[in-house]
Amino acid sequence: MSEIQQALDTIFSADSTVYQQRGFQRRIGFGTRPALIHIDLANAWTRPGNAFSCDGMDTIIPGVQRLNDAARAKGIPIVYTTTAYAVTEGPNTDMGLWHRKIPVEVLQLGTDAVAIDERIAPEPGEHVIVKKHASAFFGTHLANMLRAADVDTVIITGVTMAGCVRHTTEDAIGYGFRPIVVRECVGDRVAGVVEWNLFDIDAKFGDVEPLETVLDYLAAVSPRTEEAASEALR
Amino acid sequence: MSEIQQALDTIFSADSTVYQQRGFQRRIGFGTRPALIHIDLANAWTRPGNAFSCDGMDTIIPGVQRLNDAARAKGIPIVYTTTAYAVTEGPNTDMGLWHRKIPVEVLQLGTDAVAIDERIAPEPGEHVIVKKHASAFFGTHLANMLRAADVDTVIITGVTMAGCVRHTTEDAIGYGFRPIVVRECVGDRVAGVVEWNLFDIDAKFGDVEPLETVLDYLAAVSPRTEEAASEALR
Amino acid sequence: MSEIQQALDTIFSADSTVYQQRGFQRRIGFGTRPALIHIDLANAWTRPGNAFSCDGMDTIIPGVQRLNDAARAKGIPIVYTTTAYAVTEGPNTDMGLWHRKIPVEVLQLGTDAVAIDERIAPEPGEHVIVKKHASAFFGTHLANMLRAADVDTVIITGVTMAGCVRHTTEDAIGYGFRPIVVRECVGDRVAGVVEWNLFDIDAKFGDVEPLETVLDYLAAVSPRTEEAASEALR
Amino acid sequence: MSEIQQALDTIFSADSTVYQQRGFQRRIGFGTRPALIHIDLANAWTRPGNAFSCDGMDTIIPGVQRLNDAARAKGIPIVYTTTAYAVTEGPNTDMGLWHRKIPVEVLQLGTDAVAIDERIAPEPGEHVIVKKHASAFFGTHLANMLRAADVDTVIITGVTMAGCVRHTTEDAIGYGFRPIVVRECVGDRVAGVVEWNLFDIDAKFGDVEPLETVLDYLAAVSPRTEEAASEALR
Repeated sequence: MSEIQQALDTIFSADSTVYQQRGFQRRIGFGTRPALIHIDLANAWTRPGNAFSCDGMDTIIPGVQRLNDAARAKGIPIVYTTTAYAVTEGPNTDMGLWHRKIPVEVLQLGTDAVAIDERIAPEPGEHVIVKKHASAFFGTHLANMLRAADVDTVIITGVTMAGCVRHTTEDAIGYGFRPIVVRECVGDRVAGVVEWNLFDIDAKFGDVEPLETVLDYLAAVSPRTEEAASEALR
Repeated sequence: MSEIQQALDTIFSADSTVYQQRGFQRRIGFGTRPALIHIDLANAWTRPGNAFSCDGMDTIIPGVQRLNDAARAKGIPIVYTTTAYAVTEGPNTDMGLWHRKIPVEVLQLGTDAVAIDERIAPEPGEHVIVKKHASAFFGTHLANMLRAADVDTVIITGVTMAGCVRHTTEDAIGYGFRPIVVRECVGDRVAGVVEWNLFDIDAKFGDVEPLETVLDYLAAVSPRTEEAASEALR
Repeated sequence: MSEIQQALDTIFSADSTVYQQRGFQRRIGFGTRPALIHIDLANAWTRPGNAFSCDGMDTIIPGVQRLNDAARAKGIPIVYTTTAYAVTEGPNTDMGLWHRKIPVEVLQLGTDAVAIDERIAPEPGEHVIVKKHASAFFGTHLANMLRAADVDTVIITGVTMAGCVRHTTEDAIGYGFRPIVVRECVGDRVAGVVEWNLFDIDAKFGDVEPLETVLDYLAAVSPRTEEAASEALR
Repeated sequence: MSEIQQALDTIFSADSTVYQQRGFQRRIGFGTRPALIHIDLANAWTRPGNAFSCDGMDTIIPGVQRLNDAARAKGIPIVYTTTAYAVTEGPNTDMGLWHRKIPVEVLQLGTDAVAIDERIAPEPGEHVIVKKHASAFFGTHLANMLRAADVDTVIITGVTMAGCVRHTTEDAIGYGFRPIVVRECVGDRVAGVVEWNLFDIDAKFGDVEPLETVLDYLAAVSPRTEEAASEALR
């Protein structure tokens, strides 16, 4: 893979020169009221043996644990997603057309496969969104609940980079949230796609930042006080 | 109530004259590929004793049963909605802002209150959408699954007329589906609002039709054949 | 009309008793970062002689002028909408299905009929959204630009109450913005519908407030400083 | 570039093996009622000298011309998009947050830069959507007008592959339309991104097909008869 990485780096370097000359690759920056969004860190993706199994969990899971600890200490919203379907046959299916491209029919609602990995399990009062499409925002109430909670920045982790994480990031900036993708906390199941999708995102849709930078930011951000939370809920 | 109905009828008659002169109150008509959408016919709305309890179930429930029988005989998609929340306190709430106007905090996900009334219970293979907002389309995958299933017409029943049924109907025509609201199968919990919302809808957003007309249509519509269903799923 | 108003008041009073017992009709309240949304105050609606002409402009227009003055003094975003169509015949129409219910085919993009009334004309740097559906949010970038501008409250005026204003308000709370409907600054073209739609909205979707209350709020709200504006744009 | 293409091909080959084993890279196939969607083929992208200028127009433009000829012969809907902004300063901007990543402030509404390239200019009765975000569907009425026109398949061309074309394709399958991306008719402004984005899309979101295959399909598809068109418009 090092040869391949070298080839990709050659492309990224040439492309960055063009992007910089043209005024792309700007920094969107962190806002003041973040939320964490963990994409599809459920067993079908985080454990081996599933069509959806991804690599890199030795790095992703501990990184997400540190992000969650930091966010919980500040009362920052944490949202998990999973992709799961209630009806995978017949005229009432909730799969839409996606099963025509990828094997979503194995993601049965209510099974262990689509439950969030217990190593990063939601705590009581944290919310899991069951989505049907790639983006966490697409056909869900995510943008609405974040707006109601007065969030301006979304810290994005999870899988897969070439699918759900990318589409989520594109949607996030469209909806008016600043997307920050945590470099060490995103993954996929085939070679190269993490690198090129991070490259595209950083050029156009969101800032790709190292875990330590994001943790520093979360350490510095104002806590969501009881007052603020109760304001959001009043 | 008969005096009140008389007063409303006087208004509707005067308003209809204006609407007719202006070219409103057109008929959208039935398409060829319908789906049924039953809005919030869960126990909190269909049974007494809840803040959300509605009137008229003696008419609504049997009507919905007849519609379901007709739709099932033809393999027509049937979608149910309920409104329910996973987190009703703290920064991760999925209630958005709605609890600031109405008592949605009593609609706890997983409780019997938000389960579809067993008299019209979904059969295996039928789908229940858990929504967070008034419209069945808002923040849900409904429009996407209907488009993927090649639906062009939505037959709408349920409650409440002044809330979820109205917003669903407005959204339906916006999304490009022909909305048909079944007059005997919609209800509410306070006086007058069924009548004036049906009036507004029929003037501008969808056709309000008697149950018998809708049943006649479902009897005449082409069955969704195995082939068509399998096409939709292939 | 006084008899009719009396009949409606009788219904509203009875309904309010039920709503209050049930915990509806809560106050959503003003947030801290408002925007003004003026719905369809274009000539087709504000001037006589069009199928869409509305009543009440003697009250609505001066009210909107006062709101605009107050908002401009504070640097508060102001968004106007109009409804207009580029293609009203053939397979490429942008009318969707709405022309099957109401005469939207008369609302031709680029004509004077769909231009904002000059009495409340946008100033340079103010934005007019051309929408295709009833709600100002539906199929438009409105929610996205408001979120990016860090808006939490939408002050809604315009026409028609039974159509675009109502649907906009329902969508606003769904998207997580606090809707405030200005009682004197909304109108329609037939009798009764302003009153009953304001009643439904105040019960469930947004606060209906007198113009003077809204003006007091705008006088008290923190100005959107150059800094804040530049932050929103940085 | 041939070394780079060789490196990418090595990755694509390895990745395809995994995808095939896992059941990805399925064929979504053509439906029966297509529309053409041309993404951002306006002068800022198709002509040199702009920050947004793209390569490959010698292939893209003639390909789009052939597609348009074929579609017009059958009465198939054709939709163009451009990206343009009315207000690029102050609290009322319609740029949202995107200018924080890329130089969208140069895309001024009403300028020649954002007009569709005259070599593929829309004919009377064809529709141009002005979008604010990457996807042609995002914050626009596109999905709604396609659904109302009974479209089930979207043939996608244009630029850029790493931005607007990719996001449009992801959204298309989500909304329930079968996305077909025309390999020779998509482009970008930096190296590699066309190839890897086509690879990701073909694996997960839509079928990437050669121009000749798409032209064969359009030649074979049933014409949208006067009757069908008038049905869609009735």
